[in-house]
Amino acid sequence: MSDSSKNKPAQNIQWGGRFTEATDAFVQVFTASVDFDQKMAEQDINGSIAHATMLAEVGVLTQEEKTTIIEGLEAIRLEIRNGEFEWSVALEDVHMNIEARLTQRIGITGKKLHTGRSRNDQVATDIRLYLRDAIDAILCELTRLQTGLVDLAEREADTIMPGFTHLQTAQPVTFGHHILAWNEMLFRDYERLVDCRKRVNRMPLGSAALAGTTYPIDRSITARLLGFDEICENSLDGVSDRDFAIEFCSAAALAMTHMSRFSEELVLWASAQFDFVDLPDRFCTGSSIMPQKKNPDVPELVRGKTGRVNGHLISLLTLMKSQCLAYNKDNQEDKEPLFDTVDTLFNCLRAYADMMPAIQVKKDNMREAARRGFSTATDLADYLVKKGVAFRDSHEIVGKAVGYGVAQKKDLAEMSLQELQQFSDIITDDVFQVLTLEGSVNARNHLGGTAPAQVRAAASRARAKISARG
Amino acid sequence: MSDSSKNKPAQNIQWGGRFTEATDAFVQVFTASVDFDQKMAEQDINGSIAHATMLAEVGVLTQEEKTTIIEGLEAIRLEIRNGEFEWSVALEDVHMNIEARLTQRIGITGKKLHTGRSRNDQVATDIRLYLRDAIDAILCELTRLQTGLVDLAEREADTIMPGFTHLQTAQPVTFGHHILAWNEMLFRDYERLVDCRKRVNRMPLGSAALAGTTYPIDRSITARLLGFDEICENSLDGVSDRDFAIEFCSAAALAMTHMSRFSEELVLWASAQFDFVDLPDRFCTGSSIMPQKKNPDVPELVRGKTGRVNGHLISLLTLMKSQCLAYNKDNQEDKEPLFDTVDTLFNCLRAYADMMPAIQVKKDNMREAARRGFSTATDLADYLVKKGVAFRDSHEIVGKAVGYGVAQKKDLAEMSLQELQQFSDIITDDVFQVLTLEGSVNARNHLGGTAPAQVRAAASRARAKISARG
Amino acid sequence: MSDSSKNKPAQNIQWGGRFTEATDAFVQVFTASVDFDQKMAEQDINGSIAHATMLAEVGVLTQEEKTTIIEGLEAIRLEIRNGEFEWSVALEDVHMNIEARLTQRIGITGKKLHTGRSRNDQVATDIRLYLRDAIDAILCELTRLQTGLVDLAEREADTIMPGFTHLQTAQPVTFGHHILAWNEMLFRDYERLVDCRKRVNRMPLGSAALAGTTYPIDRSITARLLGFDEICENSLDGVSDRDFAIEFCSAAALAMTHMSRFSEELVLWASAQFDFVDLPDRFCTGSSIMPQKKNPDVPELVRGKTGRVNGHLISLLTLMKSQCLAYNKDNQEDKEPLFDTVDTLFNCLRAYADMMPAIQVKKDNMREAARRGFSTATDLADYLVKKGVAFRDSHEIVGKAVGYGVAQKKDLAEMSLQELQQFSDIITDDVFQVLTLEGSVNARNHLGGTAPAQVRAAASRARAKISARG
Amino acid sequence: MSDSSKNKPAQNIQWGGRFTEATDAFVQVFTASVDFDQKMAEQDINGSIAHATMLAEVGVLTQEEKTTIIEGLEAIRLEIRNGEFEWSVALEDVHMNIEARLTQRIGITGKKLHTGRSRNDQVATDIRLYLRDAIDAILCELTRLQTGLVDLAEREADTIMPGFTHLQTAQPVTFGHHILAWNEMLFRDYERLVDCRKRVNRMPLGSAALAGTTYPIDRSITARLLGFDEICENSLDGVSDRDFAIEFCSAAALAMTHMSRFSEELVLWASAQFDFVDLPDRFCTGSSIMPQKKNPDVPELVRGKTGRVNGHLISLLTLMKSQCLAYNKDNQEDKEPLFDTVDTLFNCLRAYADMMPAIQVKKDNMREAARRGFSTATDLADYLVKKGVAFRDSHEIVGKAVGYGVAQKKDLAEMSLQELQQFSDIITDDVFQVLTLEGSVNARNHLGGTAPAQVRAAASRARAKISARG
Repeated sequence: MSDSSKNKPAQNIQWGGRFTEATDAFVQVFTASVDFDQKMAEQDINGSIAHATMLAEVGVLTQEEKTTIIEGLEAIRLEIRNGEFEWSVALEDVHMNIEARLTQRIGITGKKLHTGRSRNDQVATDIRLYLRDAIDAILCELTRLQTGLVDLAEREADTIMPGFTHLQTAQPVTFGHHILAWNEMLFRDYERLVDCRKRVNRMPLGSAALAGTTYPIDRSITARLLGFDEICENSLDGVSDRDFAIEFCSAAALAMTHMSRFSEELVLWASAQFDFVDLPDRFCTGSSIMPQKKNPDVPELVRGKTGRVNGHLISLLTLMKSQCLAYNKDNQEDKEPLFDTVDTLFNCLRAYADMMPAIQVKKDNMREAARRGFSTATDLADYLVKKGVAFRDSHEIVGKAVGYGVAQKKDLAEMSLQELQQFSDIITDDVFQVLTLEGSVNARNHLGGTAPAQVRAAASRARAKISARG
Repeated sequence: MSDSSKNKPAQNIQWGGRFTEATDAFVQVFTASVDFDQKMAEQDINGSIAHATMLAEVGVLTQEEKTTIIEGLEAIRLEIRNGEFEWSVALEDVHMNIEARLTQRIGITGKKLHTGRSRNDQVATDIRLYLRDAIDAILCELTRLQTGLVDLAEREADTIMPGFTHLQTAQPVTFGHHILAWNEMLFRDYERLVDCRKRVNRMPLGSAALAGTTYPIDRSITARLLGFDEICENSLDGVSDRDFAIEFCSAAALAMTHMSRFSEELVLWASAQFDFVDLPDRFCTGSSIMPQKKNPDVPELVRGKTGRVNGHLISLLTLMKSQCLAYNKDNQEDKEPLFDTVDTLFNCLRAYADMMPAIQVKKDNMREAARRGFSTATDLADYLVKKGVAFRDSHEIVGKAVGYGVAQKKDLAEMSLQELQQFSDIITDDVFQVLTLEGSVNARNHLGGTAPAQVRAAASRARAKISARG
Repeated sequence: MSDSSKNKPAQNIQWGGRFTEATDAFVQVFTASVDFDQKMAEQDINGSIAHATMLAEVGVLTQEEKTTIIEGLEAIRLEIRNGEFEWSVALEDVHMNIEARLTQRIGITGKKLHTGRSRNDQVATDIRLYLRDAIDAILCELTRLQTGLVDLAEREADTIMPGFTHLQTAQPVTFGHHILAWNEMLFRDYERLVDCRKRVNRMPLGSAALAGTTYPIDRSITARLLGFDEICENSLDGVSDRDFAIEFCSAAALAMTHMSRFSEELVLWASAQFDFVDLPDRFCTGSSIMPQKKNPDVPELVRGKTGRVNGHLISLLTLMKSQCLAYNKDNQEDKEPLFDTVDTLFNCLRAYADMMPAIQVKKDNMREAARRGFSTATDLADYLVKKGVAFRDSHEIVGKAVGYGVAQKKDLAEMSLQELQQFSDIITDDVFQVLTLEGSVNARNHLGGTAPAQVRAAASRARAKISARG
Repeated sequence: MSDSSKNKPAQNIQWGGRFTEATDAFVQVFTASVDFDQKMAEQDINGSIAHATMLAEVGVLTQEEKTTIIEGLEAIRLEIRNGEFEWSVALEDVHMNIEARLTQRIGITGKKLHTGRSRNDQVATDIRLYLRDAIDAILCELTRLQTGLVDLAEREADTIMPGFTHLQTAQPVTFGHHILAWNEMLFRDYERLVDCRKRVNRMPLGSAALAGTTYPIDRSITARLLGFDEICENSLDGVSDRDFAIEFCSAAALAMTHMSRFSEELVLWASAQFDFVDLPDRFCTGSSIMPQKKNPDVPELVRGKTGRVNGHLISLLTLMKSQCLAYNKDNQEDKEPLFDTVDTLFNCLRAYADMMPAIQVKKDNMREAARRGFSTATDLADYLVKKGVAFRDSHEIVGKAVGYGVAQKKDLAEMSLQELQQFSDIITDDVFQVLTLEGSVNARNHLGGTAPAQVRAAASRARAKISARG
């Protein structure tokens, strides 16, 4: 095929007799989508095979025509997989490229494939098939990451670190408990993606251009062949609905928000000031100019990629704002944000699933940090309350003891009994038990609390939930 | 209480002995949330009553203390309902305002209410209780709007209008079919809100400040009393999780996107150029300067409010980006966007639920518009295909006939048989059956198609689904 | 170079002795930017040439070394232009790729090029050089589009169409006036981009990694060679500032918002219901299934691309939120959104600059639409006021006349004098002058008004402003 | 006025005879804007006074009418300032409320004020007047904050802290240098707001409803009276342009992004792990449960408020997307996001302008942190290069020395000469000079570098620039 034939008469194939001049060359490139929608080539072929099978079953195609079409499509699938397929911008999109190639291979019968459907329902079907596969792949990576986190949490159920609020030392917690907090977020991400998948896995095929078709199609056949759970109930909605893409991006934006939170913590923990963890060299990079640098690139990059997904979500919401029914060309803009969201989330999960099991926990540093910062002040207050002091009064007493400690550079556990008794003579020898880190974490021993026993129980429940995914 | 006492020593109540100077007056106002979080006063009281009941059950409070506290809280509830409660900015937020008032009313026992909890888990609980109620109210309005749409769809199952793609006349559809397309979008919104509600209805209470508490709390008791389905499994996550608010705003943004699409269509349809519907005067406003104006304010305003909810969604996603565990003050910024999203969605649904049953459908104008624009061109192409012409060839033939019609200002159904036969001699007398509007819509008679019979069946299924909500 | 050598030992070139293991293979791909940042190859080479020239001038390089380096870089430039350059993911980014190739070509001297700079200031310089060029190209397209609009406005200065508010017919306006409203928006876009360019055109080179360098660099030399207006005053800010990219995306989002408004109007005007304009076939596409369709793809696609740019803006704002000084890896995520924003805006402007001069204006349809819808009601009200009726009363009188007209399906100008006098006996024969379309538009004859004389004057001022761009 | 009269017949005042039924009660509340747009009451009165003055000057009003109107408006201004004005939702907005009150006070003459204008150009004028004032107030706070930062930078020009990239210790910098990096960001914010103000300060008054007016207005008079720099050139654009609000929100989003970066750093620096600064107690709050807590609430809250402004920006961009000319009701939604953006930015700047001069810098801790983390590794590399080692080789040598230091827990400056010579025998005694912190920062002595001398010079230039604002 010559270059000029690529760029010009092609459009006649598509919309023919109504038009008096060829498409402007720049407009052709500007409006074409084949550069990015070829990503859905496999789904397009699968959809076409199911459609042809159904058409044969209801008598619109003969069995022979069906077989010819399917064989032609399978041959094209191989061409694409082998990188031998010649994509043409003049043919606009993945659908016309494959259909034109089919007719080139099998002749006139190829033209019958499009009977009873339109590109409008075809693209809507392809994109749902693509996204369904993408969600399944993402769920696998989520499971892999979560499994690693549960392992880590069990391993570090007794490791004590400072718990922060406002990034100020608040109370001692166990590192396993902290890791399970992350894991809870991922459980919700998993749930949301599963909920989203229900709404993705509905079939628009059969909506035709917008109103259905005059051919005697049987949509239950194509739905079954393609593994759809339900059939879109309304053709106008079927061709114009992009909710599933937006809902997916919403779920992805939340998942990335979680990843940004994990990343922020890892970056902090890897700093010289915190020095709580060490990331393996293979997940870091250095500096072209500063020889001592070891930069936590993976968490930083994941953190940065959050914006990308938030942006894509806004992009799609803006796209659909105030769109009239049914299909409009605007909708061609749905694909790139969706594809990039899928890739971004998948890759970030993959990087974390690889990295998290390999981080080195610096227990001594964590413990030392927990020891400082008056992290057991609440325990002292609770101690006083249990001895009969009203909570607000005990809060005041401990506040003064802390003020003394700040001035003297002594933590509560480092003060002598006399020093402590300056603030309340109710304090006795048994206070030191309460002021230990172990005493503190073990005392928070209820569902959801940070006590090592609770962490182990929670990890075990998490593992069971993950296993139940089947 | 004097003004200055309102503005100064108040903070001592809250964090006491550690501080050497009072809060800066501007900072006090800047950081206070009571202006907006008093919206959750009822939820705060309900949460406190459940907490006190549990504390008594596990022996931390006596039965008498519990009774005193609950009576005090109920009295405060009445003060608030009656507008007699004096909110103080110096007391920062709804929680401290109510607690301070409780102590003022019942004395020292009031101070015991806060045993075993923290504002961190208290606010997280309140906001979930608030949102759960809000979702339920929104679901009711959704049901009311959907019921109205199904009624309308049944009434207009036979009404023919032009179906558009690219806002160009595409094929005739029934108005009932169009309305059911809207309704499908709302079904998905309903589903998404129900899915979201599952994740809202989990209880963080018992997480305390971040790590749980040293008191022997029983979280299953509070969860049962407050109607929570599940208990948040991890205290660090419990106090810092705002996923539920973001997920709700995502679902709301999609719902508002749908409303913006309905609105755009109503605004178009109410224009002199389309003139498909008439909105009742009571949903319109006029102009201060142009006496003839009758403006579709409600749809326009609803369309404009889409941006508001998209904005709130971004606001919350930005808020949580890269936040370290556990609670940070940033999170105070979660409430206003959430509250406004709730109000916006609820009010827009309410306005539409009121308005939609009252719109006047101008059937003649719709029909006339469908008659023009070559809307049955696809039917003619299908007719030729069924007579043996390959689809792509038939598409070309009809394209030429349309070109002739544009030049002659004649629609296909207005051409004589001879005129039509210029383009293909296969065309015979029976073509005029196919070219009628009724012929066209009735021919699209499969699940999801626009045929009146399908619209009636779809409406009936929709009605059943709505009824099943119970 | 074998594949494995590509993927492994490469990193030693960059950060060397501190690391004990090679980068993980997936992490290498995940963190590399060369796939997209090679877009800045020319800018990178230009920046390096300026840097080498300066280093020679201050004596850090010999003249010979400088010459060797520049010749090497120019040779690499040709390799890249000819598509002969082998980009390596193992070398991470465009900078390391070019530097490594330079050393390969010219030996050890190539290693000296990086003296006194860092990738941090290098990338910040490259991206500004890229964006400066991009803005200049966009300003050219803006000028081309605006020139076409002014031509159109002059041509259509007398063409009458309905002016809308709330998409309801409000008052007659001239089409030239409407087109100049678009043009005003583009003037603001032009201004904003010029203002933005000032802040883009400042040089970070010399900031080195973050703190400046110990070499005796002279930043005024590089600034002059590279055409920068100013020098970034602070090295920490210089390497981490991405304001210019965000500001550009903000300006682009507004420009795209304008384009979306033009597009919405063109799509409406091209509908059968409005039928105000005809877009040339070469800017439209048809349907694969509906032979009569001629779809306004270009405006639809431009409208859809608005979301894309809004998304990129959010992406970049999210990226920078809460970033500590100085450079963080997150910032690698700045490029793709910026590049795509540039391409999107440029292409949309280009498509419109091509298309607008070619649209066909259907004057008769516009005029007919203006005649209907009581568009001269305000003129009647003003007529009454000028005869002594208070404005609010006259508004009421005309409102009733319109109500009568709606019922009788008669516009004001179609009523007889007697009919009009039913509503006010002040009305006399001279009213019909006022109720003509020409009378109405000509009466709005002040700066900014719709009178043809004003439109011509405004077009002439616009043309002068555009010419003054030089 | 009774309640029911407030809620019902009021609308007749506004759009009169065309309507057959009163506005629905809920719709009235739903569509009213008076709750928030009363914020522009002063601007509305100022605009009306200028309009009346102009009308008198061109002879549409008599001098007596003008005087009566102005006296009436000034009386209303006092009512509003004194909180005595009764706002009515039935009167929709601030404009109708004031106009109705005017007529109530001065009788029929009040009705003449609206001659030759419309609410469309009135509201567009008011909002620009409001925003112009707001920008001026924000510029003042910016100047106040910047002055404080320059003072601080000069005071801390010699204070050494670690400079970070990737939050890893990179090179020593001076604290003054770091503060001036913040200040550079604020300079750009200032510039952007000044640029934005040019486009805010253009007058739409005279655009009337959409097409101008038939009265012989002179817009140059009102422009002069109201202090506008320019007059909006096109009436359709004048009433529908909201660019200025979006541009302002873009500039504010960037300013808030900067504030979020400052905040993140302050929060980190106030943590026990960094411990670089102490925030005064009056800018912090404590915990209701943890007596030791002192939380950096102001920076946290400012950081959280970033999302709010990003959200408002998206809200406004979404609002305008695809809006047809000219005014649509959607635009009523422009005010709340704009008002809240103004308040948020102003308050955050105010809090920082108060707080920054009062922070306590912990110099010893900063210095100690800079001493650790191999912050002078680049200096050692440069030292070797200056002794003739190629940069890439010297990078490798220093990398190994750092590896040794990590293992031995010794910084470079703590190693003996022998230890250093293990890695390169070129190293001699003079190396220790280079490895000191002072040596390192002083060596970066060029425009933009971190050397104390440069910091002082930069602070002095900054001070001059700020003073020149006049």
